[in-house]
Amino acid sequence: MIIVLKPGATEREIESVENRVKEMGLKVHLSKGVERTIIGAIGDERKVDAAFFEVMDCVEKVMPILKPYKLVSREFKAEDTVLRVGDKVIGGEEVVVIAGPCSVEGRDMMLEIADSVKKSGAAFLRGGAFKPRTSPYSFQGLGEEGLKILAEARERTGLPVATELMDTRDIDLLIKYADIIQIGARNMQNFRLLTEVGKADKPVILKRGLSATVHELLMSAEYIASQGNAKIILCERGIRTFETSTRNTLDISALPVLKQLTHLPVIVDPSHASGKADLVHVLSAAAIAAGADGIMVEVHTKPEEALSDGPQSLRPELFAEMMRKAGAVAGAVGRRI
Amino acid sequence: MIIVLKPGATEREIESVENRVKEMGLKVHLSKGVERTIIGAIGDERKVDAAFFEVMDCVEKVMPILKPYKLVSREFKAEDTVLRVGDKVIGGEEVVVIAGPCSVEGRDMMLEIADSVKKSGAAFLRGGAFKPRTSPYSFQGLGEEGLKILAEARERTGLPVATELMDTRDIDLLIKYADIIQIGARNMQNFRLLTEVGKADKPVILKRGLSATVHELLMSAEYIASQGNAKIILCERGIRTFETSTRNTLDISALPVLKQLTHLPVIVDPSHASGKADLVHVLSAAAIAAGADGIMVEVHTKPEEALSDGPQSLRPELFAEMMRKAGAVAGAVGRRI
Amino acid sequence: MIIVLKPGATEREIESVENRVKEMGLKVHLSKGVERTIIGAIGDERKVDAAFFEVMDCVEKVMPILKPYKLVSREFKAEDTVLRVGDKVIGGEEVVVIAGPCSVEGRDMMLEIADSVKKSGAAFLRGGAFKPRTSPYSFQGLGEEGLKILAEARERTGLPVATELMDTRDIDLLIKYADIIQIGARNMQNFRLLTEVGKADKPVILKRGLSATVHELLMSAEYIASQGNAKIILCERGIRTFETSTRNTLDISALPVLKQLTHLPVIVDPSHASGKADLVHVLSAAAIAAGADGIMVEVHTKPEEALSDGPQSLRPELFAEMMRKAGAVAGAVGRRI
Amino acid sequence: MIIVLKPGATEREIESVENRVKEMGLKVHLSKGVERTIIGAIGDERKVDAAFFEVMDCVEKVMPILKPYKLVSREFKAEDTVLRVGDKVIGGEEVVVIAGPCSVEGRDMMLEIADSVKKSGAAFLRGGAFKPRTSPYSFQGLGEEGLKILAEARERTGLPVATELMDTRDIDLLIKYADIIQIGARNMQNFRLLTEVGKADKPVILKRGLSATVHELLMSAEYIASQGNAKIILCERGIRTFETSTRNTLDISALPVLKQLTHLPVIVDPSHASGKADLVHVLSAAAIAAGADGIMVEVHTKPEEALSDGPQSLRPELFAEMMRKAGAVAGAVGRRI
Repeated sequence: MIIVLKPGATEREIESVENRVKEMGLKVHLSKGVERTIIGAIGDERKVDAAFFEVMDCVEKVMPILKPYKLVSREFKAEDTVLRVGDKVIGGEEVVVIAGPCSVEGRDMMLEIADSVKKSGAAFLRGGAFKPRTSPYSFQGLGEEGLKILAEARERTGLPVATELMDTRDIDLLIKYADIIQIGARNMQNFRLLTEVGKADKPVILKRGLSATVHELLMSAEYIASQGNAKIILCERGIRTFETSTRNTLDISALPVLKQLTHLPVIVDPSHASGKADLVHVLSAAAIAAGADGIMVEVHTKPEEALSDGPQSLRPELFAEMMRKAGAVAGAVGRRI
Repeated sequence: MIIVLKPGATEREIESVENRVKEMGLKVHLSKGVERTIIGAIGDERKVDAAFFEVMDCVEKVMPILKPYKLVSREFKAEDTVLRVGDKVIGGEEVVVIAGPCSVEGRDMMLEIADSVKKSGAAFLRGGAFKPRTSPYSFQGLGEEGLKILAEARERTGLPVATELMDTRDIDLLIKYADIIQIGARNMQNFRLLTEVGKADKPVILKRGLSATVHELLMSAEYIASQGNAKIILCERGIRTFETSTRNTLDISALPVLKQLTHLPVIVDPSHASGKADLVHVLSAAAIAAGADGIMVEVHTKPEEALSDGPQSLRPELFAEMMRKAGAVAGAVGRRI
Repeated sequence: MIIVLKPGATEREIESVENRVKEMGLKVHLSKGVERTIIGAIGDERKVDAAFFEVMDCVEKVMPILKPYKLVSREFKAEDTVLRVGDKVIGGEEVVVIAGPCSVEGRDMMLEIADSVKKSGAAFLRGGAFKPRTSPYSFQGLGEEGLKILAEARERTGLPVATELMDTRDIDLLIKYADIIQIGARNMQNFRLLTEVGKADKPVILKRGLSATVHELLMSAEYIASQGNAKIILCERGIRTFETSTRNTLDISALPVLKQLTHLPVIVDPSHASGKADLVHVLSAAAIAAGADGIMVEVHTKPEEALSDGPQSLRPELFAEMMRKAGAVAGAVGRRI
Repeated sequence: MIIVLKPGATEREIESVENRVKEMGLKVHLSKGVERTIIGAIGDERKVDAAFFEVMDCVEKVMPILKPYKLVSREFKAEDTVLRVGDKVIGGEEVVVIAGPCSVEGRDMMLEIADSVKKSGAAFLRGGAFKPRTSPYSFQGLGEEGLKILAEARERTGLPVATELMDTRDIDLLIKYADIIQIGARNMQNFRLLTEVGKADKPVILKRGLSATVHELLMSAEYIASQGNAKIILCERGIRTFETSTRNTLDISALPVLKQLTHLPVIVDPSHASGKADLVHVLSAAAIAAGADGIMVEVHTKPEEALSDGPQSLRPELFAEMMRKAGAVAGAVGRRI
């Protein structure tokens, strides 16, 4: 940690900072420059909050040297994490496709979609039983009934299922029915939820918050890992910017950046990133070219009747086309679907 | 709701949209322009999701006319909502100041700060017993013990207390000890939490999410109101932008905008907005000039020892100075502190 | 144009809006809903500023139906624009690569880089003679000398050259030496510069501004086209967001969005988007998968001695590798390099 | 400058960085931590580009210690800059109000508005003769004729005039007619324009770009100052964010931040920040409470006929009301209008 003092800091002030550094178990390294005095605090700075120094009157700024996360970092574990879920592998050579409706709306519809996406080559099913909706007047999901339908779809197709957890009180239900627990973008910093899934023995898809930096995403992953669960899949799903021609802005660069910083697999959700079905196949191709380990995509047999996210849901024939294009690009970058 | 069709939409397509509008209980109003055909859907469009039309191939875009929230809107209730909490009033002539430490760190410290802010004229106490921290390795709050200390501080000073709810499982505890329940920025779209406080008979401070629009803030307030609890205080606390010289960007314009759109009281948290104690007094003055009904500010007797948010916490003497300046500006805009 | 009146608008007010619509040569289409009266203004609304109605007291909001640009829109011209520059084609089956140093720093260096990128398959040379630098104390470019060196590099390699115009006073110089004139991101709304290149008979690369929407980019292209020059190549080069792990955020979705809205070719600059050489090959691959017609990339034989943008410049061997990967992805999407 | 090496940097790599630091005339200060080696480069780092080190393979990141601007910094000149223009003072006790139409549309209108704003207490006139318009089909200003009308308005009222420069070719015209030259937000990084006004002997209002940080604003001011012209007035006019309920987001915190970083006067333009006339008086009051040295506001006697920016222009009676409120708040913070 580098502590930059204000110009004109007195000897007494310098000493007070040095003492504070030592109190925290770090070593002091003093450097007097022409215009500024700088104090290096050497040791494991993760235990020390920059705020402890920023609050001092003689301090101009504090610059951390180390990253605030550890368990999820590439430095902590150099080789890629490869997760096995049933007979599927996430983070390996195969780019996995997780497909299904936004919400589980009913049994027949869910099974029909499940059959359809399986046929086109999806590796996992998705579907929400608990839905975070911005309006209190919108469909909120079928709850446990939805989970049961998902489980039936899994039995029928053999595809493991991923579904979202919204409330700490539902964790046992999710563990019972789901193969992968999803933490939605709006809950990326719901630290209680992170703590609960951190204690569970289930893979977790952690979606990036709309205004979360890559580092904050990794800190939320660290929350989960720090509780003992290292089976984490990161998901880029678009960030909020000033641009309104897409619902969110897919941060494609986050893929190679995350691959440098962490050993965890990273997938992309082009449906939520764009909000538009006709952009999904292009963004999927781009995501795979950028190194995505998986694609999470909304598919619906009748988007015009979907109770949520219809405009961004692919019809089965468009999904099949997306899979073909995705396969070609995967091949071009040395992977397969 | 205005439905704009793509150029070249056929008669059959136009008819299909018209039928859909009617199915949803709305009336059709057709308008053929030179380059586009437009279909107006007349009636209470709040019940109808724009997505139902966006998903149709012949539709270019859908433009809602009405706002998606109702109970919290100025149209629904023209006069300002004035909330009574104990013998205090929020939303009246007085600009209320809610002050205290970021976290309740211990009994003596909390009581000392409570005495201090009362002396300077604060109307409410604040303090976190459950803390949302970005790092799993940081202090997470004292839990129920912290709530008990807050209650003791209330007995001692007579000031009602506001504290944050992070988990649906803690709602009963909060109701037992707190006078105002706070929903933090990161939980603004934690819809389960909103639903729970919506069922409670307690005033709620709803903080704006870091990347939430003014309309999304109002939708979250609608969630609470739709459950029966209309005692809502909105809180602007800075949004996330590209600017890094402050922690967040205080959206001062949100104050007059919210005053036009809603009847609910609106307060400002300059401590979180800026992240810097030396900006708090200036931003408080600006917020009051812009129409804030209250200021929520972090005060600590020893910021250098604070377990959280030290750099943005005011020392008691700076808080006293802030109160003087705030009082002068309140007077200039026809209010008082 | 849809004009939504405030609730309670009087007959007289409605009439005043109707009269205004008629004065502007548009036809009125009145629609009285349950909660709002709406007036449709039918005709070529591009000639009419929404502001003329927004300013009226009884008007709540004005919603344009038509896009404000015409000449550059896909509706105006359905087929893709294909530009010929020398013996090269932009916007055809081939994905063109424009490569070279950020600045022309000297003759030997420029020729060495030109030879190198030609060998790896670049179709165009790039290099700045006039450089927009954020610091007045940084290298500002060689001016006309730089242009002469660029011209020499063209003679030697046969590759046409693209270079940036910063000042209306330099337009004649640029026309004399360059094959393509580049308008930099910071000048995307320098309307005088747009007007000048609009009068020139040279292809123009128009880079998207850091905070420009896709629609604003198209409006700036319309500026150029409205002066008579339709040889425009749009360039996505990253937008400014809250994320700091890359210099800017490459808006990959802008590619398919632009392809829907306009007939103009679209290229991507991954060097400026990321600011990091080690991300360039991945982002190039993603851009091609997303439909880019070209890639503009900074290459330097000695990045560590570059007078500008060293950290984002590829060494020749990395550029060669980038070309191989780009070629594979181009093949996967039915194109070539 | 702090240069952080990657973990595992070899002795030879460390030495190569050290040598580079020395070559640039700085002194080396080495610090080996537990996880990282850090090299401090001591001396005037402003002459050295961080990029020279970032480009080295063994370097993880480079962190500047000093600010990149000098002449405009508070460290360079501790006391506030106070500018005299005619018999007016900017940056003193008085908060100056600069008022007038967006564009000069004609002689009679301009004179009428000038009389009106003078009567209400404005200190300066504003009005655009050259207008940056996003559409090529909109009114572009009257050019020199507009400047002549402005000069006539000055003769008549005694109020000095501020007007915008868009093109380096117009600098002599502006110097001839204007008292203050304005650089618009879209030209904040038009470095040629900055260089030209830097050579002029006229005060300059430099507006912050829509996506410019506070530090970039100061770098652009440094451009002007580095050419010899230190008569610079900074203008906060709203930044671009995801929020759409106002045209831009007024960054009120930039006022106290700029006051800490620079000695230059800072004014606010609430008309462009909000885009809505009915927010202007509230935002003006907030800006003054936040420490603004001036307010720049659009006033029009007939906003409904304005050729540009009608919706954000105040009618004279609203301007008079704004002045009263602004005066009250100015008094509360120890200033006057």
